[in-house]
Amino acid sequence: MEQIVKTLKWKGNYLQIIDQSFLPIKEKYIKLDTIEKVYDAIKTLKIRGAPAIGLAASFGLLLAAKKASTMDKKRFMDEMAKAIRFIKSCRPTAFNLFYGIGRLQSIIENSQLDPQQITKKMEDECKKMFEEDLKSCTSIGEYGESILKDGMRVLTHCNAGGLATSGIGTALAPIYLAKRKGKEITVFVDETRPVLQGARLTMWELKKAGVKAILICDNMAGFLMQQGKIDLVITGADRIAKNGDTANKIGTYSIAVLANYHKIPFYVAAPYSTFDFSISDGSGIPIEYRDREEVKRIMGQVISPDDVDIYNPAFDITPHNLITAFITEKGVFSPDLLTNINF
Amino acid sequence: MEQIVKTLKWKGNYLQIIDQSFLPIKEKYIKLDTIEKVYDAIKTLKIRGAPAIGLAASFGLLLAAKKASTMDKKRFMDEMAKAIRFIKSCRPTAFNLFYGIGRLQSIIENSQLDPQQITKKMEDECKKMFEEDLKSCTSIGEYGESILKDGMRVLTHCNAGGLATSGIGTALAPIYLAKRKGKEITVFVDETRPVLQGARLTMWELKKAGVKAILICDNMAGFLMQQGKIDLVITGADRIAKNGDTANKIGTYSIAVLANYHKIPFYVAAPYSTFDFSISDGSGIPIEYRDREEVKRIMGQVISPDDVDIYNPAFDITPHNLITAFITEKGVFSPDLLTNINF
Repeated sequence: MEQIVKTLKWKGNYLQIIDQSFLPIKEKYIKLDTIEKVYDAIKTLKIRGAPAIGLAASFGLLLAAKKASTMDKKRFMDEMAKAIRFIKSCRPTAFNLFYGIGRLQSIIENSQLDPQQITKKMEDECKKMFEEDLKSCTSIGEYGESILKDGMRVLTHCNAGGLATSGIGTALAPIYLAKRKGKEITVFVDETRPVLQGARLTMWELKKAGVKAILICDNMAGFLMQQGKIDLVITGADRIAKNGDTANKIGTYSIAVLANYHKIPFYVAAPYSTFDFSISDGSGIPIEYRDREEVKRIMGQVISPDDVDIYNPAFDITPHNLITAFITEKGVFSPDLLTNINF
Repeated sequence: MEQIVKTLKWKGNYLQIIDQSFLPIKEKYIKLDTIEKVYDAIKTLKIRGAPAIGLAASFGLLLAAKKASTMDKKRFMDEMAKAIRFIKSCRPTAFNLFYGIGRLQSIIENSQLDPQQITKKMEDECKKMFEEDLKSCTSIGEYGESILKDGMRVLTHCNAGGLATSGIGTALAPIYLAKRKGKEITVFVDETRPVLQGARLTMWELKKAGVKAILICDNMAGFLMQQGKIDLVITGADRIAKNGDTANKIGTYSIAVLANYHKIPFYVAAPYSTFDFSISDGSGIPIEYRDREEVKRIMGQVISPDDVDIYNPAFDITPHNLITAFITEKGVFSPDLLTNINF
C-alpha cells in the first residue's frame, strides 16, 4: 500500500520532512541539510515516532558524513565518532535511533574504504533502511489486519501511523489494510497529552485516509471500555526489551492496565528496529523526561498558574504480562515467544 | 478553617461568584442577579463543583422568587414551578443541584404563607445550606485528615477544593487541614481534560494555600502508581447512589481501576448533599455529554483537524467495589456501610 503521507524523503543532499509541529493546522515541508538541523528536528518533535526517528537520525549522520567525506580518513573518522555521539544524545528512549545509527556505525568502523566510498555505502544503507521500514509497515499491516474483524472498535494512543514511519505506520497499518479490504473499523483516538500526537497527527492522517475515527481525551478510555465500546487496543512502541516489556508514549501503561481489567486484548505493533534484545527487561529502558513547558502550554496557550511544579515523563513501561501479543513484520507473537522470532 | 477563596457569596439581592472560566489567568468576580444569569454561569462552568452548583442553583431560584414575590400567590406559584423546571434542567449529573432545589421546593409547596414570606424562608434556607456546606467541608477535612500521614503523596482529579464549595472543599479539605497540622503532603494533580479543572483551578488554589502540588497530565497517573509514588487517591463526587457507585469527573473511573490494580486506597470525599439514596446503583445516574468544542479547543486553541468526530462525556461512574471509603461530614464509611450513616 502506498504511503499515507510523505513523512520523510531523502533528496540526495538533504532530508525533506513534513514538520509535524505545524500539524494539523498547516502541511509544511522543511529541508534538513545538516546533522544539527536533523538533531533539532528530532529533539523538538518536528519529526517523531520511533521508526521515523531512526531513519531521520541515520540520514542526519549521512549528512555529517557527506560534509566530512573530502577530509582525510583520520579526520573523517574523528568527525564521524563525534557525529555519532551527538545524534545518539538526541532522544534516549526510542531504540530505532540506536539501531539505525548502529548499522551505519558498523559500516564506518569496519571498512577499509576511503571516506567517499564509506559515505556512499552509508547512503545505500540509509536508503535500504527506508525501504525496509516501508515494507515492514505493510507486513505489520497484513498480519495485524487478520486480527481485525468487520465492525471492530479499536483504541489507539499517540501516533504510530504513517507519520511515525516511512510507510503506512505500525499500529495504524492494520487499520488501513482492513479498510482497503472493506472492513468497517472505528478507531477511538486518545488525544495523547502533553504533545497531542493523537489529536493532531493520528486524527489528521486517519481523516486523510477516510478511516472512521473518534477523538477522546486520554482519561475517557476507561469509561469507553467499561461501556463495552472498545474491542481491542493497538499501540506502537519506542523500545521493547527481551522479555517483552515495552516503552511507549506516556499513558500506554494505564491503557494496558485498563485493557487487562476489562479483558480487552492489548497489542503492540512494531518492526525489528524497535526490539532491543540487549536489555533483559523494562527496568533497563531509559525514560526521557521532557520540558515542563510541554505540559504547561498547549500549542502556546498557558493552562496552569506560573511557577508550579510539573512532572513530564515522555514514556512509560508496559510490562509484558499486560501485552496480548506483538504484531511484527514476521507475524504475531505473544511476549514469551519474542526471542523465537526469526527477524 | 477559613475559606481558601470566595467561590460564591450572597449579597442580599444578587449572588457574587468568582468566574472560574478566567482562572488561573484572572481573578474576576461577577454579579448574578437573575436566575437566567445563574443558569448560564452553571451551564458554562463559570461556577462548577457539585456543592457549589447546588448552592448557586438554590440562590438562583431565590432570585426568581424575589422577582416574583410581589405577584399574587397563584402567579408566584406558577413562576416558581417554571423556575424550578428551568434550573433543574441546567446540568443533569451533580445531585447537589436537585438536593438544594428540593429543599427550597418543599418550602414553596408546603407553605400557607404569602409570596414575600415564602421568599424570606427561602432566603434563610439558602443561607443555611451555605453554612451547612461550609461546616461539612471542615468536618470532611477533619475526618479525612486523620487518614493522611506525614510525607504522604496524594493523587487528586479535577477540582474538589474550595472552588467547588462554600468552604475548604471536599477532596482537598483533608489536605488543607493536614498542612495546618504540620504534616507534609504532596499532591499530584491530574490536569483533568477537557476543561482542565486540575491544571487551572486545583493548582491555583493549592498554590494560594502553600500546599506542595505537582501538575501531571491525566495519562501519567498510572506510571506514578507503578513507580510507587502515590500513597492514596482522594476525589470528590457529583452523585453517589445508594450502593456507593459514584459519578464524578470523567477519568475518575480509570484512576479507580489503576488504584485497585496497584493496591492504593481510593477515597471519595463528599457531603450529604451529594448522596442520592433514591437511586439504587450507578446505572441510574444520568451522565452529561458536553459540547465537542470542549475537547477540540483548549482555552481557545484548536487542537485537532476540523470536522472530526468527538466523544465528550463529562462524568463517569466508579463502581462501589473500587472505592475504599467515603469521607463524609459524619465520618469515614466503606461503601457497604453507606446506608448506616446518620446524616
